[in-house]
Amino acid sequence: MAIDPQKALGAEIPGGPSSWDRDQVILYHLGVGAGVPPTDTNELAYAYEKNLKVLPSFGVIPVFRSLGAIGGVPGLAGAFNPALLLHGEQDIVLHEPIPVEATASSKGRVAALYDKGKAAVAVMELDTTDASGKKLFTNRFTLFLRGAGGFGGDRGPDVKIEPPARAPDLVKESPTLPQQALLYRLCGDKNPLHADPDFAKLGGFDKPILHGLCSYGIVCKAVVDAACAGDVKHVARWQARFAGVVFPGETLVTSMWREGKTIFVAAKTRERDTPVLSNAALTLR
Amino acid sequence: MAIDPQKALGAEIPGGPSSWDRDQVILYHLGVGAGVPPTDTNELAYAYEKNLKVLPSFGVIPVFRSLGAIGGVPGLAGAFNPALLLHGEQDIVLHEPIPVEATASSKGRVAALYDKGKAAVAVMELDTTDASGKKLFTNRFTLFLRGAGGFGGDRGPDVKIEPPARAPDLVKESPTLPQQALLYRLCGDKNPLHADPDFAKLGGFDKPILHGLCSYGIVCKAVVDAACAGDVKHVARWQARFAGVVFPGETLVTSMWREGKTIFVAAKTRERDTPVLSNAALTLR
Repeated sequence: MAIDPQKALGAEIPGGPSSWDRDQVILYHLGVGAGVPPTDTNELAYAYEKNLKVLPSFGVIPVFRSLGAIGGVPGLAGAFNPALLLHGEQDIVLHEPIPVEATASSKGRVAALYDKGKAAVAVMELDTTDASGKKLFTNRFTLFLRGAGGFGGDRGPDVKIEPPARAPDLVKESPTLPQQALLYRLCGDKNPLHADPDFAKLGGFDKPILHGLCSYGIVCKAVVDAACAGDVKHVARWQARFAGVVFPGETLVTSMWREGKTIFVAAKTRERDTPVLSNAALTLR
Repeated sequence: MAIDPQKALGAEIPGGPSSWDRDQVILYHLGVGAGVPPTDTNELAYAYEKNLKVLPSFGVIPVFRSLGAIGGVPGLAGAFNPALLLHGEQDIVLHEPIPVEATASSKGRVAALYDKGKAAVAVMELDTTDASGKKLFTNRFTLFLRGAGGFGGDRGPDVKIEPPARAPDLVKESPTLPQQALLYRLCGDKNPLHADPDFAKLGGFDKPILHGLCSYGIVCKAVVDAACAGDVKHVARWQARFAGVVFPGETLVTSMWREGKTIFVAAKTRERDTPVLSNAALTLR
């Protein structure tokens, strides 16, 4: 059964309720490498409830579980193999700084559907609002449905976010822990690919890999710390393409180029010099 | 007002309900250093829900909050300064292996009260049972109430748990992370002494110190891994005296001597060669 874009486009994604508190924010921050050195004021503001701030990338956590809903979307259900789904890009727009605790709810839709030939691309967009109805942030998950292309749809735009040709203005290294993925998965993404060596081998990897969204958070933190003096309130948007895997214990090297309100970003592994995030930019408020 | 041993001895400690699940067990294990290397089968059994086991020392977590109740015990309330309270020793008896998830409740009493002259010593004993009424474990917290001695009570026994004079049979090193205390505090002990540099200075420390019960867990794990082949089911009891502080990032060196069903234990810091746990033993089932 092929994808039916007429049915799928605009179909509702049930995001549902979610809530978070300081402990979950701190756990997320430790999961993306915060807290070193623990006597540093900036690091403590990520990992201690006094003066706690919230990384913009935390906003993926309350809606992460909604990704599973793609399997039930009319026009998509049964038309792709969930085992061949890849999370291709992530984009979060912050309507205001994320509060340290909230009762929220999310609502989403299939915002775009492209036909890349062999693969289909589905963009799921979810808005998250707090209990008073105030819109907090909007997530856009770009998902590659391998083997589900060829349904006769539009190829879609070829968006390129390319840093300037000059050497980066700033470079920051972010070491990860050997147990980084085991810690990050406590934030909710329990895919065994990130913990189970046997499962990782089935997926074609020598050992478990770090979550793409963990790298997304690590690099977000690197940019906030290096280019925004640690001030999360400056961030209006953070978008990136997942360009390659990270093994827990590797160090991420984040390069930054500032052009007006845009900070162009590229991240690679130090050990293997392989790309981690590309097509990436953090937009200042 | 002096301590009134007639009123305090045997007074009930309201332990109340508690519950835990796999995520909390895994968080605790990561908090006491599990998960390295993450591809090791033994480490994964601490940090991944498949084949998950539970360290005996986890049993302190469900009753930890009950410690605060000591301030309201008749005969003790108002007779000591909570700021001068020190957790001196910890002893847990496992009636059976701790389940990976449970709904439990705890009930306790002031089991002993000693007069050491300047300080008083209160032993709080708490039994934890599961929903079916089965007794899981018994905790004994020995608390030093500095400045509250001299009430005319018994000095109590002088229990010495001393390893044999020979060189240790086994030695295991356990590195800690710089952010170890920030992670461990997510298990419930939010004392700012373990996170806030200003607060630590008020307490007389150069920087925040690791939780005593975190060291208690790290050393328990070292003994289980080195002397019990990682099999938590062998452990019937784990007791230790807190002998000195650890700064996050330091490495604990655990020495072990096996005598029949008793494994005598001593732990020190590698960096400063200072004692961490003394009067310590793990008893095999």
